[in-house]
Amino acid sequence: MSRHHDVPTFVPTAVGTVSNELPGRYDSRFAPDRDVIKRVFTLPQLELECGATLKNVIVGYECYGELNAKGDNAIVIAHYFTGTSHAAGRYRQSDAEPGYWDAIIGPGKAIDTDRFFVVAVDCLSNLNAKNPMVFSTGPASINPATGKIYGADFPLVTISDFVRTQYALCRALGINRLHAACGPSMGSMQALEWAAQFPDYVDRVVGVIGGGLANEPYLAALLKQWCVPILLDPKFKDGNYALDEQPMAGLTASLELVTLNALSPNWAQRAFARRRANPDDTGFSLDFRQAHFSIESALTTTAHARAELTDANSFLRIAKAVQLFDLGANKNRLKAKVLWIPAKTDLLLYPVYAERGIKEMRALGLHVETASIETDGGHLDGLNQIATVAEPIREFLR
Amino acid sequence: MSRHHDVPTFVPTAVGTVSNELPGRYDSRFAPDRDVIKRVFTLPQLELECGATLKNVIVGYECYGELNAKGDNAIVIAHYFTGTSHAAGRYRQSDAEPGYWDAIIGPGKAIDTDRFFVVAVDCLSNLNAKNPMVFSTGPASINPATGKIYGADFPLVTISDFVRTQYALCRALGINRLHAACGPSMGSMQALEWAAQFPDYVDRVVGVIGGGLANEPYLAALLKQWCVPILLDPKFKDGNYALDEQPMAGLTASLELVTLNALSPNWAQRAFARRRANPDDTGFSLDFRQAHFSIESALTTTAHARAELTDANSFLRIAKAVQLFDLGANKNRLKAKVLWIPAKTDLLLYPVYAERGIKEMRALGLHVETASIETDGGHLDGLNQIATVAEPIREFLR
Repeated sequence: MSRHHDVPTFVPTAVGTVSNELPGRYDSRFAPDRDVIKRVFTLPQLELECGATLKNVIVGYECYGELNAKGDNAIVIAHYFTGTSHAAGRYRQSDAEPGYWDAIIGPGKAIDTDRFFVVAVDCLSNLNAKNPMVFSTGPASINPATGKIYGADFPLVTISDFVRTQYALCRALGINRLHAACGPSMGSMQALEWAAQFPDYVDRVVGVIGGGLANEPYLAALLKQWCVPILLDPKFKDGNYALDEQPMAGLTASLELVTLNALSPNWAQRAFARRRANPDDTGFSLDFRQAHFSIESALTTTAHARAELTDANSFLRIAKAVQLFDLGANKNRLKAKVLWIPAKTDLLLYPVYAERGIKEMRALGLHVETASIETDGGHLDGLNQIATVAEPIREFLR
Repeated sequence: MSRHHDVPTFVPTAVGTVSNELPGRYDSRFAPDRDVIKRVFTLPQLELECGATLKNVIVGYECYGELNAKGDNAIVIAHYFTGTSHAAGRYRQSDAEPGYWDAIIGPGKAIDTDRFFVVAVDCLSNLNAKNPMVFSTGPASINPATGKIYGADFPLVTISDFVRTQYALCRALGINRLHAACGPSMGSMQALEWAAQFPDYVDRVVGVIGGGLANEPYLAALLKQWCVPILLDPKFKDGNYALDEQPMAGLTASLELVTLNALSPNWAQRAFARRRANPDDTGFSLDFRQAHFSIESALTTTAHARAELTDANSFLRIAKAVQLFDLGANKNRLKAKVLWIPAKTDLLLYPVYAERGIKEMRALGLHVETASIETDGGHLDGLNQIATVAEPIREFLR
């Protein structure tokens, strides 16, 4: 079992295999004056695509809304690369920020929890292994076979593995049919994988800031670059580091590059322009680690804080999972209706990827609707500006 | 003096301060059946913008065409980040590739060497310090004060320093007036700096794949990311490495990221699609250094070959020079006519940077003409597809 079970602050209310009586409770949990509950799903074992078998697999999940008697009003939300299952609401009313898609998930919102039973799930090997609200079997978890953390030995996991875990959870929750599988970025890949793996179970796919039916080579090369700083950090030790001695310098640099790639030139110009980190700095220092511009120091500060909650081995596996994403021949199994929403200024999953994907899906005979996030903040506008496409999403789900 | 003077293969024909009788020779040197000559300009000393003084400064240069009697038909070509002064022609007819702008520099071409005397110059601290055809005082040069290489002690150099070196060369060559200062990318920054520093000397500026009058914050942050792999490599030793023991892993990774950022998603799709580096590789290896996709291995191979000719300390200084580029109050000195040519799919100096730059130059009352490289290969189309904007350049220089 994972070390997460000892986290003192937020005790999950439902550790272990989910029981059928749970779904009815979620409605009241998601009233505006109530807190979101993080729950944990346990699967005794999971055969991975790579051939390995994981025992005692756990993933965290959150539910918003209520499952109907027929069990067919459920919507699954899969998260993005650095995301978690915290898609909506607040754990406590004092939380500074709600879940990442709170603008479209809730009572009366585009993904209407008065109507739908929404389930958001952590992926396996979730990056945020040190975040006490994230539950996800990964390299930082205890290997039941050794009693020590998996570390470098944790196998590669894939988008397909994430989806099959989610399917087991949905079945355990009594969901007979998904009204939709949705997600931003890596979540959109999972939504497509859902529809390809379980074509008779998934009616609709909503993919935001996604690409096509397989990862693009340019993104594959960029994902490799994201991993480079971790791999170069001497503390990485080929993944054989103690959890409290991880390659922080490399991991911080990796997360800086991720953040930069997920934003945009106009964001940078608005937020920082050419302001200096230290107004007295002439820029002529030979210490190349010293930030001259405030954008550099801000990215480092943010990335370092995130690195404190992140595990480097988990990061590498998620990068590989995205690199390897490819529906392959399973694309011919797709039947779901699709709503595909690129962001115009996305510098990570370029709109041209979505164009190619839409073309290919239509060539397969799929019903594909499209919308576009037109704001200029880059990839992250798939989260930050999701409200701008609330209506197309609401209409598509109607 | 620099260690470059001992290079055996290509002995420069004009080492030392250039003499006034030289220019007349270049015409015949640039006939199609003749080889381009690399020459070396020596400046006894140069006061740098950072306050340091360099002694015995050398920069390599190439000339194409002939200076006229009035000394006013000269065009300076400044190079890009990883470039050199080899802008046109071949050193030997057997060379696989000519200089980077050969498509527009030559007899009858847009930058017509039957009409203009074209001078292309290496920047200070040129990245390609180990390329025997590059002459550029930098961290890999011998410090005359110690008899050892400068290494980590080499001061920061700026775009302004590059331009003032070029100005000294132009004066030594007998050039009384520049018909134009031109360049791609970092070369466009030098061209603008030329016009701001020497407004009565420069009639025209041609900037290709350039930005605005100061570097953008998003690019500043990206340039920092380019340096990260070098800084993380334990062999970097804060710049105090022996030339034959430089941080090759970090430098190779840095050059991979540079190359990737200079290309484009469509280039990647055309050149590699999802081909694997090794067809038998399932992708499930836990060796994260192993390339799965052919785009990864190709970038590594190319970058490693380039790293063999590159010096890491020089790389860091050029990245800083671009970060710090800012005409500042000198922008009010600008008088030259400007031709500004962004590339539509540029992911490094985004077209929006050029838009902002053009707007600002026009607000300063400058005459600004524009053209656009419309191909889909990214930043490098400012080199690879320069022929597509040959006519606007020819017209502008007429």
